[in-house]
Amino acid sequence: MTTYSAFIARVKEVAILGSMGGALRWDRETYMPRKGAAHRGEQLAALSGMIHEAMTSLQMGEWIDALRGADGLSPDEAVNVREVAREYDRQKKIPTALVQELSRVTSRAHEAWLHARKNDDFPGFAPHLERIVALKIAVAEHIGYADDPYDALLDGFEPGLTADAVREMFAPLQSQTVELLHAIVGSTVQPDESLLRRPLSPKKQREFAVQVAADFGFDFDAGRLDISAHPFCAGSHPSDVRMTTRYNEQEPMSALFGVFHETGHGLYEQGLDPDHAYTPCAEAVSLGVHESQSRMWENIIGRSRAFWIGYLPKLKSLYGGALDDVSLDAFHFAINGVKPSLIRVEADELTYNLHILLRFELEVELLNRRLAVTDLPEAWNDRMRRYLTVEPPTDADGVLQDIHWSGGALGYFPTYTLGNLFAAQFAAKMRSDLPDMDAQIAAGRFGDVLDWLRRNIHRQGMRYTSAELVERVAGEPPNGDYLAVYLRDKLAPLYRL
Amino acid sequence: MTTYSAFIARVKEVAILGSMGGALRWDRETYMPRKGAAHRGEQLAALSGMIHEAMTSLQMGEWIDALRGADGLSPDEAVNVREVAREYDRQKKIPTALVQELSRVTSRAHEAWLHARKNDDFPGFAPHLERIVALKIAVAEHIGYADDPYDALLDGFEPGLTADAVREMFAPLQSQTVELLHAIVGSTVQPDESLLRRPLSPKKQREFAVQVAADFGFDFDAGRLDISAHPFCAGSHPSDVRMTTRYNEQEPMSALFGVFHETGHGLYEQGLDPDHAYTPCAEAVSLGVHESQSRMWENIIGRSRAFWIGYLPKLKSLYGGALDDVSLDAFHFAINGVKPSLIRVEADELTYNLHILLRFELEVELLNRRLAVTDLPEAWNDRMRRYLTVEPPTDADGVLQDIHWSGGALGYFPTYTLGNLFAAQFAAKMRSDLPDMDAQIAAGRFGDVLDWLRRNIHRQGMRYTSAELVERVAGEPPNGDYLAVYLRDKLAPLYRL
Repeated sequence: MTTYSAFIARVKEVAILGSMGGALRWDRETYMPRKGAAHRGEQLAALSGMIHEAMTSLQMGEWIDALRGADGLSPDEAVNVREVAREYDRQKKIPTALVQELSRVTSRAHEAWLHARKNDDFPGFAPHLERIVALKIAVAEHIGYADDPYDALLDGFEPGLTADAVREMFAPLQSQTVELLHAIVGSTVQPDESLLRRPLSPKKQREFAVQVAADFGFDFDAGRLDISAHPFCAGSHPSDVRMTTRYNEQEPMSALFGVFHETGHGLYEQGLDPDHAYTPCAEAVSLGVHESQSRMWENIIGRSRAFWIGYLPKLKSLYGGALDDVSLDAFHFAINGVKPSLIRVEADELTYNLHILLRFELEVELLNRRLAVTDLPEAWNDRMRRYLTVEPPTDADGVLQDIHWSGGALGYFPTYTLGNLFAAQFAAKMRSDLPDMDAQIAAGRFGDVLDWLRRNIHRQGMRYTSAELVERVAGEPPNGDYLAVYLRDKLAPLYRL
Repeated sequence: MTTYSAFIARVKEVAILGSMGGALRWDRETYMPRKGAAHRGEQLAALSGMIHEAMTSLQMGEWIDALRGADGLSPDEAVNVREVAREYDRQKKIPTALVQELSRVTSRAHEAWLHARKNDDFPGFAPHLERIVALKIAVAEHIGYADDPYDALLDGFEPGLTADAVREMFAPLQSQTVELLHAIVGSTVQPDESLLRRPLSPKKQREFAVQVAADFGFDFDAGRLDISAHPFCAGSHPSDVRMTTRYNEQEPMSALFGVFHETGHGLYEQGLDPDHAYTPCAEAVSLGVHESQSRMWENIIGRSRAFWIGYLPKLKSLYGGALDDVSLDAFHFAINGVKPSLIRVEADELTYNLHILLRFELEVELLNRRLAVTDLPEAWNDRMRRYLTVEPPTDADGVLQDIHWSGGALGYFPTYTLGNLFAAQFAAKMRSDLPDMDAQIAAGRFGDVLDWLRRNIHRQGMRYTSAELVERVAGEPPNGDYLAVYLRDKLAPLYRL
């Protein structure tokens, strides 16, 4: 089929361009010399321009028109056409002038946000955020939506999902989480988290983290672990996946669980089908599904008692005696400690979702003009009090803490909790498919787990939306109960509830 | 001028694409995981295709036709038009089928060369080399030349230079070098080179090398020094220049002088005019001029007695006593030791040029069909005996030692000696402009030297060909006598001749 061949050849070219951007961004965060930033910006801008041009060209439009719903396409070919067409439609609907305006505004807003956070000056950031909200509403109007402008933005990160669907998934989680949290706060049994802050050299942290990542199945001949200020995982091809972390001698758990997390992302990227490389059939479904993989390895496996049966002795040996007095139970309790806190990125597995819920609700209200930007700090603090029982003393520790809004990423936050939620639902199914999963994990054998994820998720590429994938794999639509149950089952015994 | 604006905007876009290739190649040699090679190949091939397409497009041809010799161009604009047109003409003249055939043939030839070198099997490599010579002759015919097909190939590395001009420059050098070499070999005074092989940890080698590179003026906020199997310097913009080296604990001088060398390349790249970035006015003139900068810092400065007045004490301190018995004179003599040897990349400053002369002569004969590939080993060994007084016991240590021919790089070798030759001529002029140059170097002050190079060479970009630049800077055309005199002035006293 000649049209499809021409179309997919161009799609691959564009994906290869995109993968160059991935490599250049990785370098920017890891090894690029300080003064190279402007030049790197030129490179990335040129690349974005070329990708946008190729993806929205007349030729691409003609191919897509000819192929959309065409007979004779194989199922995989139809997936590739559908997904490229979806992206094409999105990009075509947003006027270039609006894209450029957003780029200008967010570039200034990022500077303003850095300044405002440093000086606890929300009013200094508010006009920028107001402008961003207005532009994102305009984007949503151009893209179109049925009920809620939020849907049009969410779709950019989690294709096919709506604010209503998110609300429905989050509802059971919210009620049960708040209840559980209050019980935990009131419990007389509390973990000794100080044992997690016994110092360990960065070299030994790295040694342990690399060992675990390799045991999980990360192929270090097809990937790396480097250092960056903000940890991330950049996959440009299954054969080249770059993870980063940062080491703090006084907070060793930060790097360890951070690497478990990035390894989850990395295993997803390494698990994409190389035979479909550079096409949607070998791309991750969505941010939510990507996050489900990182949370699976970081939390569901990495914070399980089974895991530490095998690995606590290894960690103790790296500590050279300085952790020998710590029992498995005490360690397991400490790494699962729950405490209401102000900062999302430092939150535990339970309260994290409340931080997300709050942001999701505020974003929806902002985009529906039911909340004014100037009223945002009050709304933030009010919800913090109600959901998390704490109130930020400053806006820097509150509404100004995250980078996302300054970059125009409204609709992004829910994907974090969607990840937790999908992960819990996948894990429940995996556990029923692999009855001796805990015994395998305790023995340091992760092959069956990885194989299950590869088959059910990684190899699927973008063949299904996240909701479809969950239903296919788990046998029912996404459901927040699984996460709530998983958290209660783990935390209630620890806190003797 | 609208046509020029459109033209130069495209030229900059293409240069930015080229700079991405530089970054991706650097990564390939330093940090890329092993299995990422094929994907990286896809990226680089896509990039080459896009660059070739943009540089040879109808539109580019129209702009060049309109701008070639147009009135109203500023001198810098005229330089940019001239240089882009030169590259355009070269690329247009070579049929795409020939380029593709060369790519296929050299790709196989590289494998065959690796195998042949390993097994000392010249006959196994010969058919590949024959094919390459035939294709390069075809390239030369397409490009066109006045006297010698060699000129058309040399022009790709050293624009404007001819085989005749090279012969003329090399002539005084050859006669005087061979004579000096024979005297040195016969001298009863010889350096103790064993003191150069006292071990030093890679960490300390790096510490010393980085210190010297920074003292020379290399800006580590606009560049880096990493490790790779084959040292190189990749500059993609004055603000981001990547050098590499490799460390051998038993051969510390290899990394030290290697870094001095790459720093010379790096200073050139950092010294290009950022205001003209992405245009020929901020590109290096030629391989020969680039090499003149590396040889300037590696040899003329780095192997001078003045330099080690200041730096030998620093090196001794890094050795922690293990070098304390070595005098400045003994050290200076050792790092300037001359000994006929088989391998070009291990050759000293004097004999190096004889290795190049031999290759240059053989290349010219091959391309003029005066020498058959099958007779190459004999011709090689014969010249080794006559010029260097040694004969390779195997072809692996002889005609098979270099990678260049297997990649189709015929016409490249002379640029190494051109670098030495230009460096000596520049240095003679610099010395007359900066009478206290040695005192500055002895004091570890390199600012005036760097400033001289910046003004006279780095900032000139491609405004002049190498021969024009030498004449402009030194007041006379390129002349091999300067190198011959420099070598005799340094070596005769050391060997008491």
